[in-house]
Amino acid sequence: MIGEIITIGNELISGRVCDLNSFFLSGRASSFGLEIRYISSVGDDEDRIIDSLNRAVNRSDFIMVSGGLGPTDDDITAEVAARFFNRELIADKTFLSSIERAIKKRGLPWVEAYRKMAHIPEGALLIDPKGHACGFYLHYDAGVKTIPVFFLPGVPAEVQKLAESKVLPILLADGEKDVVRQRVFKLFGLQEAQIGEMLHDLSAGEPNVLIGYYPNFPENHVTVTVRAATGSLADERLAVVESQVDQRLGRYLVAKDEATIESEVGRMLKNKNMTLAVAESCTGGLISKRLTSVSGSSEYFERGLVTYSNRSKYELLGVDTQTLAKHGAVSRQTAIRMAEGVKTRSAVSIGLATTGIAGPTGATPGKPVGTVYLALSALSKTKVKRYHFLGTREQITSLTSQMALSWLQRFLTDDTVFFGD
Amino acid sequence: MIGEIITIGNELISGRVCDLNSFFLSGRASSFGLEIRYISSVGDDEDRIIDSLNRAVNRSDFIMVSGGLGPTDDDITAEVAARFFNRELIADKTFLSSIERAIKKRGLPWVEAYRKMAHIPEGALLIDPKGHACGFYLHYDAGVKTIPVFFLPGVPAEVQKLAESKVLPILLADGEKDVVRQRVFKLFGLQEAQIGEMLHDLSAGEPNVLIGYYPNFPENHVTVTVRAATGSLADERLAVVESQVDQRLGRYLVAKDEATIESEVGRMLKNKNMTLAVAESCTGGLISKRLTSVSGSSEYFERGLVTYSNRSKYELLGVDTQTLAKHGAVSRQTAIRMAEGVKTRSAVSIGLATTGIAGPTGATPGKPVGTVYLALSALSKTKVKRYHFLGTREQITSLTSQMALSWLQRFLTDDTVFFGD
Repeated sequence: MIGEIITIGNELISGRVCDLNSFFLSGRASSFGLEIRYISSVGDDEDRIIDSLNRAVNRSDFIMVSGGLGPTDDDITAEVAARFFNRELIADKTFLSSIERAIKKRGLPWVEAYRKMAHIPEGALLIDPKGHACGFYLHYDAGVKTIPVFFLPGVPAEVQKLAESKVLPILLADGEKDVVRQRVFKLFGLQEAQIGEMLHDLSAGEPNVLIGYYPNFPENHVTVTVRAATGSLADERLAVVESQVDQRLGRYLVAKDEATIESEVGRMLKNKNMTLAVAESCTGGLISKRLTSVSGSSEYFERGLVTYSNRSKYELLGVDTQTLAKHGAVSRQTAIRMAEGVKTRSAVSIGLATTGIAGPTGATPGKPVGTVYLALSALSKTKVKRYHFLGTREQITSLTSQMALSWLQRFLTDDTVFFGD
Repeated sequence: MIGEIITIGNELISGRVCDLNSFFLSGRASSFGLEIRYISSVGDDEDRIIDSLNRAVNRSDFIMVSGGLGPTDDDITAEVAARFFNRELIADKTFLSSIERAIKKRGLPWVEAYRKMAHIPEGALLIDPKGHACGFYLHYDAGVKTIPVFFLPGVPAEVQKLAESKVLPILLADGEKDVVRQRVFKLFGLQEAQIGEMLHDLSAGEPNVLIGYYPNFPENHVTVTVRAATGSLADERLAVVESQVDQRLGRYLVAKDEATIESEVGRMLKNKNMTLAVAESCTGGLISKRLTSVSGSSEYFERGLVTYSNRSKYELLGVDTQTLAKHGAVSRQTAIRMAEGVKTRSAVSIGLATTGIAGPTGATPGKPVGTVYLALSALSKTKVKRYHFLGTREQITSLTSQMALSWLQRFLTDDTVFFGD
């Protein structure tokens, strides 16, 4: 089944808002073996919406439309849907009362504009009659086939909930398709071109094996997608390619599929029964935030110190004023003392520290913007290294946090190799 | 001039990667008064790319294409462009040597696949002959007019650089247009529907005033766009609407245009010569990270403590074990002691603290997931409040950090009102 996504909203074509709904919907549909072939965005304009719908029903088997169902004046999608399907726009009582309940439950004031949201084309089915997010669908009669057209709201959280619990199950209920299996390899430390050279023979001449390369700063992601007539054939095919990718790129691999470097580091810390404390300067809390984004991280994450001032480095980590005065806050010596200090004072297994110049200001002679020191202290050893990252303030802090997580992962994988490097 | 954006890549239609390039290009074009009317994404598929180009040259005045110019097998855009324009694909020597220089400069190993990147359709112009990011453009002869078609890479940082420094200046050099002015209002604490009701009369019957409503979790953004024949007329028109919006929504306004709540809080702290320290539990470093994302934040941000464990709350903030045992880590009493502790021990003007249950686990009787205490201590006073935020772990931490920043902003605006609330 070939699908199409149309997102509606002036905010999308004017670049005010990034189209997260196409991203989500295409990803979820693809993971279920539904092929999304076209994605398009148009403004809140009747003729252009009709035009997009016309094109879509001529080339796709199902259509997911998102946006323009809200209460404000610029929300015209339900009205346009009624025109496209040649139906009246009518107030739906079930829908209206579910909106009323939802507003009440959340303790919000009632606004007359909500009444407009409960209007749908006559005969349209509510996607989630018991829920309160708006959304309806109709079937377009294309002669040889019937094309379901889903109209979803524009708020990402609502789209995600409706798509996951209602739209995809409806779509998957009909239609025979090949079985698709996919694995995502998340890599750090190689360029996209290098990865391409290392893998491109794996899909050459193999129409049922597709390899995709996706820069996902600061990582590079590779997807291996295989197709087969049955699940076990697809599993087998995927296993063969996966073992090749593992063999060739294993040392750059940080995580697979839904896992992340954060969740992997967390898993390894738990397995080894180790605890961690972080002292950050240039990263400003990003490393702590990434580590604690994992549910259950309180089991191994003891504390994080954003020691932005010299005074906090001295008071909280014991970086002596002499070191700071002689070598500066951005130095090998300070990084070592930060890592050792946070480890000792927190009584944890691992102390990790970063200090650097995220820019755009703050460079000093010999220490350009992007100069970063990383230090890791554990098992009575401390490793320290100077890096020079390129990019904006955001890119430099992102790269630093990624390298810090990568250090943790490498340490937890094999501390002898890590400290010997 | 009406423009169109086409992004190319299997990663986009399969939902592996979010289309940040359409987002950026449409935003920048719009801010210069160029109207983007259509955005579409297709996979790395020759026929579908040709099809998109054909449609685009029939309805738009300029086209920006992004993606598929890289070194890997799935990058076919240059080849397809050659076919669409009926030209040979040739190796460009200038381009090849700039790629060679770039690789050398970054100290990266040369990979043969880079050679492929230097192939462009015969007669195409390099967008940045002296740069090393790939990208070229050609003019499509549509009889009555000539349509420039820009082919840009897929890496967001390269797209942004090329668009900003080359593509937009080329486009702006020709064509007369109305002057467009836009102001963005960033709001927190109101629903989209409420905002709509409060503003919709401002654009009713005013074809040259456009108001857009954009949920941007956890904020809501409103854009006011005005058009006029001259710059001073547009400025005047904008000022009238702006003063109305300010009057009606002022108390929910956190920032305008490029400013953010983080940068506003920073500006106010600097103006008042105040310093800040943060103690975070459930937000895990997010508040520190947001505050330090502003360049120059070291002037007022003294330290941030991610006190995840009870021990760290005791050791670093002086939250006594009795308070923790009696009331728990997520309590009014703990929040107060955290804010007062971080303020006193850091010797700053303001101590800010959060403690809560971000979920999905960790709820206790009477303290469901989403229970959060905020506390702010300054000027010998401490304010504390319990919130119950709804959503995922990420949404709850995001809302908590936003509310914390909003507290700072309100305190800095008028501390009497803030503490009196």
